[in-house]
Amino acid sequence: MSDPFKSLHDAMNQFAAERDWDQFHSPKNLAMALTVEAAELQECFQWLTEAQAKDLDEQQLAAVRDEIADVQLYLIRLAGKLEVDIEAACWAKMKKNADKYPADLVKGSAKKYTHYQD
Amino acid sequence: MSDPFKSLHDAMNQFAAERDWDQFHSPKNLAMALTVEAAELQECFQWLTEAQAKDLDEQQLAAVRDEIADVQLYLIRLAGKLEVDIEAACWAKMKKNADKYPADLVKGSAKKYTHYQD
Amino acid sequence: MSDPFKSLHDAMNQFAAERDWDQFHSPKNLAMALTVEAAELQECFQWLTEAQAKDLDEQQLAAVRDEIADVQLYLIRLAGKLEVDIEAACWAKMKKNADKYPADLVKGSAKKYTHYQD
Amino acid sequence: MSDPFKSLHDAMNQFAAERDWDQFHSPKNLAMALTVEAAELQECFQWLTEAQAKDLDEQQLAAVRDEIADVQLYLIRLAGKLEVDIEAACWAKMKKNADKYPADLVKGSAKKYTHYQD
Repeated sequence: MSDPFKSLHDAMNQFAAERDWDQFHSPKNLAMALTVEAAELQECFQWLTEAQAKDLDEQQLAAVRDEIADVQLYLIRLAGKLEVDIEAACWAKMKKNADKYPADLVKGSAKKYTHYQD
Repeated sequence: MSDPFKSLHDAMNQFAAERDWDQFHSPKNLAMALTVEAAELQECFQWLTEAQAKDLDEQQLAAVRDEIADVQLYLIRLAGKLEVDIEAACWAKMKKNADKYPADLVKGSAKKYTHYQD
Repeated sequence: MSDPFKSLHDAMNQFAAERDWDQFHSPKNLAMALTVEAAELQECFQWLTEAQAKDLDEQQLAAVRDEIADVQLYLIRLAGKLEVDIEAACWAKMKKNADKYPADLVKGSAKKYTHYQD
Repeated sequence: MSDPFKSLHDAMNQFAAERDWDQFHSPKNLAMALTVEAAELQECFQWLTEAQAKDLDEQQLAAVRDEIADVQLYLIRLAGKLEVDIEAACWAKMKKNADKYPADLVKGSAKKYTHYQD
């Protein structure tokens, strides 16, 4: 099986090259585009109740799928430009989080969540 | 080789279960958290010139790596809650983008980029 | 009574001048900073239930007040750089919204809200 | 002269009441909407160079004006729900910023800006 991050990264590189879009895809611009896509994803949920947000219809889900993809694709593109290995960064961050929020200390302490979590 | 999306998804599930954090991780809240992390990633670049943003020092890069991981982890968590296959969604979106922005029509047309792109 | 937009605008201009910060406050950078501050404001609410979010304690409210101010201040600074009259823009936008969402058509139609609103 | 914050606040209250939209305008949802509008404002700049972003044409400026208004209107609406006095919050925050970034210490120290500023 091939690595999906690498396959998508290479496909996006080719996509941008064929359109001459590298000139726009600086790290700063890609970071901006990523936030904009994350906001568009969030927008799918913003007027929904918690219950509605857990029970999306097929049309809503199709929109959400597209926005999830947009976030993922810009993230891969940005990481590629900065030569960051996303998967390795994730495992390193999970290790940090495990140290920062020890399970036995945090569990059952809902109140602390809002202070602990980032 | 295992699928990194699946491995990270399963590790996050366990992490949240051990801390009783599922109560906070509704789709709506996760979508909010994702945008917040994207904004924190963007913040790393906001006062930098284009040149500076392409030449991060090790300290800046360490911060960027952590924020990229946060975005990726919340995206995987959100997609998991909604049963969205991120990789499949990405390939479907790239196909849509290829139809929407035909290479021969877009190439060399920098001006159109700002109107075409989303 | 003086115009609060103008008073705050002038005070921020002086603040930035005294610190040599105009070099950082380009429209693009200010637009980025504004989103980051909006995300920080949103972060105050992201793990709260709807009920908790309506019943903030004094500590939470103090944080919210600071973030509201940050959003307002960057908005005034950005508008100033672009010579946009915020108050006039608001009244013009409210007029547009009134035309776009006629009260008699929209009222009682909760479902349409998610489609109509932007 | 009347207070623009109060006039806009009252007009928005009436607008929402006439459409039965108070049900959607919880503090949490309004904070989300605010970030989404800030991201839409940012989107106007994301593929522009610094030079282009300082020299918007009339069409771009019209879009920016609308987005500035959207951010301002949601901010006023959110502050209203939380009974936060925006203007007072701004002056209090500017005082804090003046204490945090003393002009004589910060001036001329471009490098420190990225560490100091929030």
